[in-house]
Amino acid sequence: MPDFTAEAALALTRYRSETLQYAPRLGLLDLREWICEFLAEEGIKASPAEIIVVNGAKHGLDLACKLFLNDGDCVAVTAPTYFTGIPIFRSHGLSFLQVPQDAEGISIDFLHREIKLRRRNGQPIPKMIYDIPDFHNPTGITMSPDRRRQLVAFANQFDVVIVEDSPYRKIRFGGPTFPPLKALDDSGRVVYLGTFAKLLAPGLRIGWVVSTAESVARIAQLKSDGGSCPLTQRIVFEYCSAGKLSQHLDRVSVEYHKHRDIMVAELREKLPQASFRVPDGGYYLWIGLPGIVDADRFAEAATAKGVEIISGTRFYADRNIAYPENRIPGSDHIRLAFSFASPTQIKDGIGRLAEIFHQPH
Amino acid sequence: MPDFTAEAALALTRYRSETLQYAPRLGLLDLREWICEFLAEEGIKASPAEIIVVNGAKHGLDLACKLFLNDGDCVAVTAPTYFTGIPIFRSHGLSFLQVPQDAEGISIDFLHREIKLRRRNGQPIPKMIYDIPDFHNPTGITMSPDRRRQLVAFANQFDVVIVEDSPYRKIRFGGPTFPPLKALDDSGRVVYLGTFAKLLAPGLRIGWVVSTAESVARIAQLKSDGGSCPLTQRIVFEYCSAGKLSQHLDRVSVEYHKHRDIMVAELREKLPQASFRVPDGGYYLWIGLPGIVDADRFAEAATAKGVEIISGTRFYADRNIAYPENRIPGSDHIRLAFSFASPTQIKDGIGRLAEIFHQPH
Repeated sequence: MPDFTAEAALALTRYRSETLQYAPRLGLLDLREWICEFLAEEGIKASPAEIIVVNGAKHGLDLACKLFLNDGDCVAVTAPTYFTGIPIFRSHGLSFLQVPQDAEGISIDFLHREIKLRRRNGQPIPKMIYDIPDFHNPTGITMSPDRRRQLVAFANQFDVVIVEDSPYRKIRFGGPTFPPLKALDDSGRVVYLGTFAKLLAPGLRIGWVVSTAESVARIAQLKSDGGSCPLTQRIVFEYCSAGKLSQHLDRVSVEYHKHRDIMVAELREKLPQASFRVPDGGYYLWIGLPGIVDADRFAEAATAKGVEIISGTRFYADRNIAYPENRIPGSDHIRLAFSFASPTQIKDGIGRLAEIFHQPH
Repeated sequence: MPDFTAEAALALTRYRSETLQYAPRLGLLDLREWICEFLAEEGIKASPAEIIVVNGAKHGLDLACKLFLNDGDCVAVTAPTYFTGIPIFRSHGLSFLQVPQDAEGISIDFLHREIKLRRRNGQPIPKMIYDIPDFHNPTGITMSPDRRRQLVAFANQFDVVIVEDSPYRKIRFGGPTFPPLKALDDSGRVVYLGTFAKLLAPGLRIGWVVSTAESVARIAQLKSDGGSCPLTQRIVFEYCSAGKLSQHLDRVSVEYHKHRDIMVAELREKLPQASFRVPDGGYYLWIGLPGIVDADRFAEAATAKGVEIISGTRFYADRNIAYPENRIPGSDHIRLAFSFASPTQIKDGIGRLAEIFHQPH
C-alpha cells in the first residue's frame, strides 16, 4: 500500500479551500489533465471535457447504464463476467446476452449469429457490450488485436455502445501490449472505465469515465453526488504527478508476478487436476476443476478453512446458457486471487484447497 | 474550514490497511456508532445497522428514491423546495405534488385536501414526502412541534414515506429546538438524511441515511460504489470523536449568526422593499421582492456584478402550481446565502443588489 501522508498534508494545507469545498462536477481539472496524459501513453486521445471523475469504476458502470440504457434493454456480457457488475446491470432492469470467449477474447462470430437470430425472431438486440479486454476478470484472457478491431467494427455496424472496463491493464507481468478499444474508436461509441482502485488503493474511491464531451456532460447531470471527493482527488493527483505512480506500479507488478508464479507452481504440484491459463497480468487465476466437484460447496469448504475463493457460478449473469454436461454454469470453476495474499498465505491456501479436493466428495 | 491534517496523518498511518482498502458496505463501524450517539442527543434512537454512510445527502436522496419509488410515482415537496433535489426526483421519473408552507411548515390541510381530490379523480397519491423541517432551504422556516406530529400522523394514515433532510439543524443561532421527525416515528417510515457537508466541509462527501435495518440493507445492495471512501470516513470519525466537531459548530454558528445579522441590517437599510423572515439558523435568506422585478433577470444582473444569488424560480419543482398574479412561481423571490461570504462581501453584495434594484426595470 502506498504512503499518501505527504500528499494528504499538502492537500489539507496548501489546497484546503479546494479540497474542503465542492469539487467541479467533472472532477479536478489537474487530475483530468493528468489522466489525459496517462491515457495518451496508451494511444487514447481524450481532452479533459471528455473525462468525468467518479467514485470508482463500478460507479462509472452504473452511470453508463443510466445514460445509455432503459429498463428492458439487453446488455451483452462475456460468460463468465465480472460478478460485481451483474447486480448493477440487474438494477437497471436489463436482460443479458451471454457471449463465450476463446483464447483471443469475446466471440464476434457468436455475436453475429445471435444478432441474426434475434432479428429473425423479433427479439431485442444488445444495446451495450461490456467487456474487460486486458487481463479479463475472472478468466485472465487478453483480447487479441484482431478481435479488438472486429469488436469495434461490430459495434459500429449494429450501433452498440461498448463499455471497456480497464482496471488491470497496468498490472502487467509480460506479453505484448495491444491498443485499448477506446484507441480504436473513431465514432465515440466506446466508453472507457478507469480506476485508481487497482493502480493505487481501492479505498480512494476514485475512478473515471472517458466518453464524448456530450455524454460526459450528461453523465455529470445524472451524477447525484455533487462532485466526487476533491480531497482524495488532490491526493491522487499529487502522488501521480510526482512520478510516484509508475514506481508503485513497477513494485506491484514485480510483486504480483512473483505471487502468480508461486500460485501456479503450488497448483501444479499439489492440485494437478486443476486446469487454467497463466495470465500475463491482473489479479486472478480462473481454475477449472474436474466436473465431479461442485464449486459452490468447494468454496464454502474453503471459506470454512479460512481460504477466500469465489465459486465460478457467481460469474455468470444468469443460468440461461448452454453449459457442458447440462451443469449449472461455472459450477466446475473457481476464481483465485494471487494479488493481496502473501507467498506464505498462497502456499498455505493452495495446500488447504488440495486437502479439500482430496476429501471424498 | 477545519484543520484535518492530524486526522489525515493518523488515518494514513495507523489505519492505513483500513483506509486504503474497500470499506464495509454500510460504512466504518466506528463512524456509524458515533453517528448513533450524535443522533441520540436529538432523540433519535438508531443502531449501527440502521445507518448507511453515503457520499453526501444528495446521494442518500437518490438511493431513497431508488429504493422506495418507481417510475411515474408522485413525490410531495414543499413549494419552494431544495433545488438540487429536483433533478434527482426527475431522474427517477417522478411527478410532483407541490405543497405550500406557512410559518409552521408544510401545510397538512393542503395535503389532506389534495389526497381526497386525487382519490376522487383516480389520480396517484404521493408515495413520498420530502421536507427539511429545520431551517428549510430556501425559506428558513422551522416546522412547529404540532406540525411535525401531524405530518408523521399523515404519513402513517396514508402509508407515505417521509424523507427528512436535515443538513442545517446544528447551525443554530437561537430559537427553540423541536424533535426531528425521525424521533417521532414509531413505524420506520421516516428516512433521515444527515451530512457532514454543512457540519464540517462539503468536500468530504460523507453523509448518512437512517432507516430500518431492512431498508438499509437494501440500500447497500443498490449502492453501486463498493462502499463510501474509508479514508474520509476515518478522518471525520477521528475529528468528531476527539470532540472537535462541537467546538467547530460553536465557532461556525457564532460566525454565521453575525453574518445573518449583518445581512439583515444591510437589507433593511439599503433594500427596504425586500420582505423576508429572519431564520433561527441555517445558511439562507428567502427574499420576496416587489412583483415588478423578474427574479431570473435580477439574478443574471447580480451575477454580472459578481454577486452570487439564486433566482426563486429554480426552487419550484415545476410550474404547474397556482401563484399570485399568475406569475411564474418564484419569479418574485431570490435566495441569498449569508454563510460563506465575509461581512465585507455581504455589505458590498447587498449594496450592489440595491443598485440593481434601483435601476429602471
